[in-house]
Amino acid sequence: MELGLMVIQGIGRGSSMVIKVRKVHVVRRSRYQEIVVADVEDFGRCLVLDGYIQSSEVDEHIYHESLVHPAMVLHPNPSKVLIIGGGEGATLREVLKHNIVRKAVMVDIDEDVVKVSREYLQSFHQNSFNDPRASVVIADGFKYISEVNEVFDIIILDLTDPYSSDIASALYTESFYRMVYSKLSDDGVMVTQAGSAFFYRDVYDRVVQAVKNVYPYYLEYQVWIPSFGYACNFVLGSKKYNPYEYLKSSYVDKVLRERGVSTKFINGVRLEALINLGVY
Amino acid sequence: MELGLMVIQGIGRGSSMVIKVRKVHVVRRSRYQEIVVADVEDFGRCLVLDGYIQSSEVDEHIYHESLVHPAMVLHPNPSKVLIIGGGEGATLREVLKHNIVRKAVMVDIDEDVVKVSREYLQSFHQNSFNDPRASVVIADGFKYISEVNEVFDIIILDLTDPYSSDIASALYTESFYRMVYSKLSDDGVMVTQAGSAFFYRDVYDRVVQAVKNVYPYYLEYQVWIPSFGYACNFVLGSKKYNPYEYLKSSYVDKVLRERGVSTKFINGVRLEALINLGVY
Amino acid sequence: MELGLMVIQGIGRGSSMVIKVRKVHVVRRSRYQEIVVADVEDFGRCLVLDGYIQSSEVDEHIYHESLVHPAMVLHPNPSKVLIIGGGEGATLREVLKHNIVRKAVMVDIDEDVVKVSREYLQSFHQNSFNDPRASVVIADGFKYISEVNEVFDIIILDLTDPYSSDIASALYTESFYRMVYSKLSDDGVMVTQAGSAFFYRDVYDRVVQAVKNVYPYYLEYQVWIPSFGYACNFVLGSKKYNPYEYLKSSYVDKVLRERGVSTKFINGVRLEALINLGVY
Amino acid sequence: MELGLMVIQGIGRGSSMVIKVRKVHVVRRSRYQEIVVADVEDFGRCLVLDGYIQSSEVDEHIYHESLVHPAMVLHPNPSKVLIIGGGEGATLREVLKHNIVRKAVMVDIDEDVVKVSREYLQSFHQNSFNDPRASVVIADGFKYISEVNEVFDIIILDLTDPYSSDIASALYTESFYRMVYSKLSDDGVMVTQAGSAFFYRDVYDRVVQAVKNVYPYYLEYQVWIPSFGYACNFVLGSKKYNPYEYLKSSYVDKVLRERGVSTKFINGVRLEALINLGVY
Repeated sequence: MELGLMVIQGIGRGSSMVIKVRKVHVVRRSRYQEIVVADVEDFGRCLVLDGYIQSSEVDEHIYHESLVHPAMVLHPNPSKVLIIGGGEGATLREVLKHNIVRKAVMVDIDEDVVKVSREYLQSFHQNSFNDPRASVVIADGFKYISEVNEVFDIIILDLTDPYSSDIASALYTESFYRMVYSKLSDDGVMVTQAGSAFFYRDVYDRVVQAVKNVYPYYLEYQVWIPSFGYACNFVLGSKKYNPYEYLKSSYVDKVLRERGVSTKFINGVRLEALINLGVY
Repeated sequence: MELGLMVIQGIGRGSSMVIKVRKVHVVRRSRYQEIVVADVEDFGRCLVLDGYIQSSEVDEHIYHESLVHPAMVLHPNPSKVLIIGGGEGATLREVLKHNIVRKAVMVDIDEDVVKVSREYLQSFHQNSFNDPRASVVIADGFKYISEVNEVFDIIILDLTDPYSSDIASALYTESFYRMVYSKLSDDGVMVTQAGSAFFYRDVYDRVVQAVKNVYPYYLEYQVWIPSFGYACNFVLGSKKYNPYEYLKSSYVDKVLRERGVSTKFINGVRLEALINLGVY
Repeated sequence: MELGLMVIQGIGRGSSMVIKVRKVHVVRRSRYQEIVVADVEDFGRCLVLDGYIQSSEVDEHIYHESLVHPAMVLHPNPSKVLIIGGGEGATLREVLKHNIVRKAVMVDIDEDVVKVSREYLQSFHQNSFNDPRASVVIADGFKYISEVNEVFDIIILDLTDPYSSDIASALYTESFYRMVYSKLSDDGVMVTQAGSAFFYRDVYDRVVQAVKNVYPYYLEYQVWIPSFGYACNFVLGSKKYNPYEYLKSSYVDKVLRERGVSTKFINGVRLEALINLGVY
Repeated sequence: MELGLMVIQGIGRGSSMVIKVRKVHVVRRSRYQEIVVADVEDFGRCLVLDGYIQSSEVDEHIYHESLVHPAMVLHPNPSKVLIIGGGEGATLREVLKHNIVRKAVMVDIDEDVVKVSREYLQSFHQNSFNDPRASVVIADGFKYISEVNEVFDIIILDLTDPYSSDIASALYTESFYRMVYSKLSDDGVMVTQAGSAFFYRDVYDRVVQAVKNVYPYYLEYQVWIPSFGYACNFVLGSKKYNPYEYLKSSYVDKVLRERGVSTKFINGVRLEALINLGVY
């Protein structure tokens, strides 16, 4: 371990990760959290919220493609998409790759995260904020969902971990998933990142159970994200389409191709592999 | 992060992992390395060599099953098996699960690791050292391979990482793999753990290239091991059987069933998923 | 920073110290706290309670001599001495060096600390537990003081820091110091270690104020203890003798000499220097 | 220990200090070293070079007053002063407090340190760079001393530690001290900071011996600097004036008063106390 500037991020209940920092672009306490943008060893530029890396230059595509495309592919016509969280704009970027999307709304509670991302995380958002189909709303996700007078085909929950801070904890509950259900079209799909099932099994099990209680179909899968120090879990809820039936390799590739989506990590073979690998 | 006793283990070139220690059973400097056996938060009992967790109670089965069974299943009749390293006895345990095995030799350079494992890592070796088919040799793996007058069906290299210390570095070279080749039966298979491709791509690429240069068939796959802080890579070399052809889900399950092998992590679906997931 | 086994101990509110561990003798959770005895780099053998080094082989004499001798020298005839805390026996050892002492009672709440010290910290207690003048009581210090039917010439409070845990916090209050006062002879002296004035000024100021409120004379001084990572503060309260008047260099040396006390750190010149250096 | 951005600085051979960072102003790799300016918990704004805090807002006056005033007071007429190192300008600030000084030259090897200090460490240098008596030279200190055609009354070596990096190691040798001697007036005085005698006794002893070999009179003293994590050692060499004779409390106060020097830490009583406390 070297001396000097470091980021220490939480991994499990008794484990954390120490990463050498090469350059710091921002350290700011917003109304909601501590925001750091730094260039670090092994992972390049990172967005760090309250001591947890949210995205890193070298592996954010793995996380964002894994979050977005399974849900998007599962729906035959995802015209309207809502993202809660995702302030760095990379989830929005992946959504907009589907040329079938006509409207994408991103709702983040923390304006400072969005501002900082616009300025320092260009390669993450790739100007997706300026896409004519996109709009950004600064609002509490819970309040937004409860008040919005619209239905969406896809709702993506790109939140901080359920256990890392209090900001997002209300957005991992059954009552919230019911509200999300009520704002989805009849064949709508939701997906949430769910932190680490390995390190916080109890928290994860509650999230999965809550999704199962609300949606007729669900899917769980996990993907190792190097800069997180663990495999990130994802839970998908679907009103009409059974993911285990639809998300076969050739179908996934066909849909991505038809919609003009080019990816670096997710493809049909990989997605089917992730589903078969399961949660451990 | 808590105060008190911790293990700090390396992950990448500029990253490491800090883990709270609950109890320490052994801290000993052997002729070759620092040996620690401790009970730690999140992972339970661990064997730590020179500051790197080699095995932990909660996930050692993931590592050892992933190391052993692909190679074992690929060979139709693995009668004689050689393990280099693997002092905690868990690789031996997995090998001996295949009832077709008649002889398994484990060669570890560090007698102290074997002694400490016998005493403190009972759930790891499960007395496999006492199986009548097993023998344990304390010797330098390089020297043993170069001098042994026998051929094996399977050679498993369960070594410390190529970059974490100097002990094992000679055992990740093309010239070593050629020696291994010469001590394999005509349809023999070797497999090595290969550290982290993500964090040490250059080192990993050299290992893969060296295996490819020596064996007509090879296979690479990676598995996230929580207590390592990363996905561990494995590289397999095969003289006769093409792993991408043979290691199909139903075949894997059939072979494991026929040989009486019961596992907690690896099965046909998972192994095929790992192969399809690939290295990233 | 090296990898492997470490102790992380708190220093200030946002600072801590990481120390490489060479050998661990004990890790035990007693009824009150986590007890670690380990050999560490830079400091040798250490007693660590709840993640704070209490004593280390290489500098415990600095701490214990600085705690004990100013109070002992200030009193012309310290015949009966009470120590609260001090489970490793080194405070008792320093007290007993004064041949004028006829009775020394040590009261520690945690029997396990005393047991572990007896076994692993021989060079700290130097068998002072077996001195015919000494007795060891396992009891809550607060309760002991409130119930004891005896007066002492000296009462030494050798406690964990007021801010590091809850065990000792009641023993840093004005009401406790009043109880201590009531169990001191008419010319009695008490002294307490008081953690770090630099890092916890607010806590320290309350301790000093509490002592001042109870005793007509007081003295404050600080001594850098390398293994603590900071200068440790001490606060002395005196019923009759003004320490700033009495504790002159030649008087201190004369008293130590007359009582047969040999020291490695404290002498007349050093004590006067510490008093003149003051608290910063 | 908290999560998020941290500074890890070395203390001893097997110890280091972890400090929570609140804000980062600069992270830059200069030609010579990594320069960080950050606001940290417990210590406020800091200059960190190669992972070692050089100065912190809350205690830099302790370090700089202890470095400068003993040497300055010892000389009856310090008209010309040379500082090697000291890029943050605080040593220069202390020197210029002596109204008797007519010329002060500061020589730092690293232009970036001086630039960064000018911009971010205003409270450290307090515009002393702009004092008409001051001049700043960007040069290698060793080379400067060997080539300068002038003699100085005082030479102050305000360098990085002899063991923390290679930049300054040539400036802690007997041959360098001889060169310094040759550029001092007949009653000149030099002083150097000398890192930690406790943690690097062997290095420290060589420095003291080298000074003793060159100068008829020497003085050693140490001062606990909270943000360093240890007591910093200082070694002074004098051609004519015996420091142990001159630096008495009332004389020190008289000289400081006559020269219009106001201080926060060093005064006659404290300096005499430091000298009497000695090195431990």
